[in-house]
Parts: sequence; C-alpha cells; structure tokens
Amino acid sequence: MSDLPKKVQINEEGPREGFQIEKGPIPTDRKVELIEALAETGLNQIQTVSFVNPERVPGWADADEVVRRFHPKPGVRYTALWLNDKGFRRAVATGKLTLKGSISLTVSEKFLLRNQRRTLEQNLAAQQEMITLFKENNVSIERGSIMAAFGCNFQGDIAPSSVVAMVGDILDLGRENGLQIKTVSLADTMAWATPQSIQRVVGAVRERFPDLHLALHLHDTRGMAIANAYAGLQMGVDTYDAAVAGLGGCPFAAHAGAAGNICTEDLVFMLQEMGIETGIDLDRLLDVARLAEEIVGHPLPGKVKTAGNLRVLREKLKAA
Amino acid sequence: MSDLPKKVQINEEGPREGFQIEKGPIPTDRKVELIEALAETGLNQIQTVSFVNPERVPGWADADEVVRRFHPKPGVRYTALWLNDKGFRRAVATGKLTLKGSISLTVSEKFLLRNQRRTLEQNLAAQQEMITLFKENNVSIERGSIMAAFGCNFQGDIAPSSVVAMVGDILDLGRENGLQIKTVSLADTMAWATPQSIQRVVGAVRERFPDLHLALHLHDTRGMAIANAYAGLQMGVDTYDAAVAGLGGCPFAAHAGAAGNICTEDLVFMLQEMGIETGIDLDRLLDVARLAEEIVGHPLPGKVKTAGNLRVLREKLKAA
Repeated sequence: MSDLPKKVQINEEGPREGFQIEKGPIPTDRKVELIEALAETGLNQIQTVSFVNPERVPGWADADEVVRRFHPKPGVRYTALWLNDKGFRRAVATGKLTLKGSISLTVSEKFLLRNQRRTLEQNLAAQQEMITLFKENNVSIERGSIMAAFGCNFQGDIAPSSVVAMVGDILDLGRENGLQIKTVSLADTMAWATPQSIQRVVGAVRERFPDLHLALHLHDTRGMAIANAYAGLQMGVDTYDAAVAGLGGCPFAAHAGAAGNICTEDLVFMLQEMGIETGIDLDRLLDVARLAEEIVGHPLPGKVKTAGNLRVLREKLKAA
Repeated sequence: MSDLPKKVQINEEGPREGFQIEKGPIPTDRKVELIEALAETGLNQIQTVSFVNPERVPGWADADEVVRRFHPKPGVRYTALWLNDKGFRRAVATGKLTLKGSISLTVSEKFLLRNQRRTLEQNLAAQQEMITLFKENNVSIERGSIMAAFGCNFQGDIAPSSVVAMVGDILDLGRENGLQIKTVSLADTMAWATPQSIQRVVGAVRERFPDLHLALHLHDTRGMAIANAYAGLQMGVDTYDAAVAGLGGCPFAAHAGAAGNICTEDLVFMLQEMGIETGIDLDRLLDVARLAEEIVGHPLPGKVKTAGNLRVLREKLKAA
C-alpha cells in the first residue's frame, strides 16, 4: 500500500472510444462540444478521434471534420488514434493534433487477425514501417503499447511471460531504431483482468524492466476496472487511460453489450478521495459526463455522475 | 497481498434489498421464484424479506406471504431483516426462517434519526430490548453490525476511531448479556468508502480487536464496491453481503438513483478468477441475475451477466 503514487496522469479517451461504437449518427458539432467541454475540466490530454476506415467504423467518418472544428485550449494535448499509415497521414494533415508515435503490439495473434488483419510477424513489420513514417514526419516515439495483455476472447489466457517478452520486443525495436521508449501501456482490451492479474503482469514486467514507466488501459466489461486501477495504484502505476461516463468499447471484441473503458470521473473520484492529485475538477467533469450521456442519448455506466461528489456533500454538511 | 482468504462466504441479500425499492408492485410469486432460484446456485445464506412497516416500505407488504410460499432447500439458511420487535415477531411467526439475533448500531446519529427515528442512546436501549426478546425466543446472538461505518450523507465523514468505539459498544453490550459476539459487519450504507478507507477502518478495528471476525456490507452507489471488496480481501475479510445483479439500495439514503449492494455475480466472478472458493456456481448465478432483471423489468447494474463467465469462454476456446 505504500507504493501509491502521489499524482496520477489521466489520458481521456472518451470521445474517440465512445463515438466509435455509438449507432448514431451523432452530429459532428456535438462531438466537438464534448471535446471542448472535456478541455475545461483540467484534463491535459484528450484523444479526440479515430482515423480509421469509415466503412469499418462509420462513427468516425467525420474524424477530420471534428478535428478541423474544435477550438483547442492552451495546455491541452489533443491526440488521435490511427492504425496504419493512411490514418496517420490524415492525423498529420489536420495540422492541429499532438502527434506522438507509438509502437503498438498485440499479444494475441487471433485478436490481431480480427482487429487489424495481421499476423504477429506482419504487425512487427508494420510497426517498423510506422516508425520510419513517424521519423520522416519528425514525430517523436517514446511509447509502446500492448493490447490484450491480460487475456483474449479469441486466444484465452495470456501468460505474464508473453507480455514481458513483448515489452522486450518493443524495447528492442526501439533500440534498433535509435529510440528511447519511456512508457509502455498495458491494455486489458477484452476485460480479462482482475486485480490479481494486474498485480502479476505489472509485477512481472517491472521485475524484468525496473526503469520502464508503465501505464494501464482498462475496460470495465466485467465490472473490474476500478478494482484493477486500484491494484495498479498499489503497484505504483500512475498513468491511466479513461473515458468520461464510461463511454465506448471495442467494436471488434465480440462482447455482448461491449462495455467501455474505465470511467474517468469514477476513477477521479476514487483518486480524489484517496488524496491523490489529478489536476482535474471533478464537478466540472461530472457535468461533462452528464453531457456525454445527453449526446449519445442513452444511459452511460459511470456511477458518480448520478451519486454525486462527496467533496460537495461534505461542504454542504459543513455549511448547514 | 498475502492475506487473501482461501474461501469467502457470501450472504445473498438481493431479494430483501431489491424488492424494497422497486416501484413494483412485483407479484409475490415472482419474489418466491427469485428466492428459490438463488437457492440452486450454491449460495448457502439468502436474506429473503424485510419485516418492516408496509406504509414505509410497500414493496415488503407481502413479506409474510413470500416466506410462507417458498420451498426451502436443505442446507440453505433463509434469513430476514427486521428493525424492531414487531418485525422480529413476524419473522418468528413464519416458523420457517433461520433466526439470528444481531446487535445493530449506526455510527451516524443523523442517519439513525431518519432511518429508524432513534437517537444513538435510544438505539442502544432498543438493542438491549431486542437482546432480551431474542433470548426469550431462544434466538442466538453472535453478530453485531454497524451502519454508516465509512461515512454518512447526513453526518459526513466518520472517524475510524468512532467505528472502533462502536465495535467496543457492541462487544460490551454482548458481555453484559452473557453473549459471545463472534462477527461484526461493517456497512458502507451510503457508499462513502474507497479501498483506502476500507483498509483504514478494517485495520483500526482489527488492531483493537484482533480476534474479532469481520464482515463487509458494501454499496456500489459510487462504483467503488468491487474495489472495496478487493481491499477487504487484502485485509483478510472473508465474509460479504451481496445482491444478485446489484439489486437494491436503501430507500432512506437520499441518493439520486440509489444504487444497490455490491453485485453478487461480479464479486463471485472476481473471486473465481482469483482462485478463491465460494461454493457458488457462477453460471447458474448469471442465469438468476438475468431472471432478476426480467422480474424487476429494467436493467440492473451487474456486468458479468452481460459480458459472460471467462471460465466458460476458456472451455469453449479449448474445445475449438
């Protein structure tokens, strides 16, 4: 318990994660509205859109237009997701995003084949091509990520040693290209993780690579996300992706009722109550969570947006 | 982390917790159906009904009739809730329930006044009367419970020392009456707990009373229940109340959208994945969770009932 970080970085992925699975269509201006509202909460990194094939993800056919329209707030990094060179070039063309290269691997070949139509080997080669492309565009590459790091709906359990080996692959690929990979993000893409497996996998990676900075990308499909984040905190992990109101989910993960990422405001609530700094104004964030719900037109899973911020309740009780 | 229990006892409270807040009316036979279905899952203790004032809790006006109708399964303890002698006498009259006396205190006087219309002092006196009544009816008293042990919507934060003192009150009252109180249940009645406060309060109580067996009653109103249970497991707590599908919530707790108890099947899922024994068949329990949803006629919060049991998925993948 002594290893809890004092400060946590939350990378908001709600817009990108959320709008990719909404049946919609959601008007472009409402997507812009959500991104701009998120920027007023103290979040300093917002993943705005996904530059993917509009035939596969119709919800992001207007990605370029969303980026064109939003008004950036100084001090906030606006990022985007891409899966290949085509997507990356669209991101570059906006001239408006913080472009950060990443080496993105997936432990499960079966998932990779479905999600990106590549074998493990093809994916490694594709990453090399992306690195070259990033370099040509002067985009820094300091991060790696591993999807399905805790289990896969198509492949089953994933051994911690496989994740450790893949972190090694990322670092090797970085070294071969003269890069310094500082952070590796472990993604529980299909919600197989429990607090115990978080502890095991993070522990195994940390034992082998003690100086590597780790991040977690957690899904709440089986209701474990907050507990998993807590296990991450106990292991000293200080960087989390999250989605406001619990927006999102992966359209290729074959879930009945694919649930989204860990809910940003519920995570911020836990951190606030534990005295861990995030730089985020929970009350403003709760307003944005309710806005997100209004935009998608159906209830979203976050709980604190309904139950309320205890800090506000405390102040009311003191004033009474 | 080394203190995780090997086996966990789950006391199901779904029927009692759930039907008390449903606008309903839910037919008596459907309540019976849920109780009987729960008994087939391996759960060995099911809180069936609440013997409370039907004017205050109309959902339990048919409590006596529900108990009359269900067919008990051997090996399952069927319990009930009461708040006063009138309720207790109704429970006795059924002749069908496992009656266990309890010394029930509440740390927050403000909540107690609203929930039971008693001061702390009046509540202690009322407990003494209940003990006398239990003894007259040959009902054993081995358990205490403390409501609002982690915070209160009307009183605010609760100091761990207040909880420790109140555990002392329970044990004193027990001793004065020649009882051996073995277990005290700490209830996060209004969902103020975080994993950290679970750790603090459980730690404080355990430090003062190392031989006392502790149980947790957790609500998920702010999305922390599973994380809080995990924190409890790390502290060695091996007994949890839970509600199938996340049914329920307290009608007097002044929550917008009062969320229910920790969801039984999501908790069982976490325990199963962590290799902790519960004696419960998760697949059967998931069926009952879906039945609960059908009975109340609206979505219930549990997640695994939609996302599915990983153990089943693993078997399918192995067979494929």
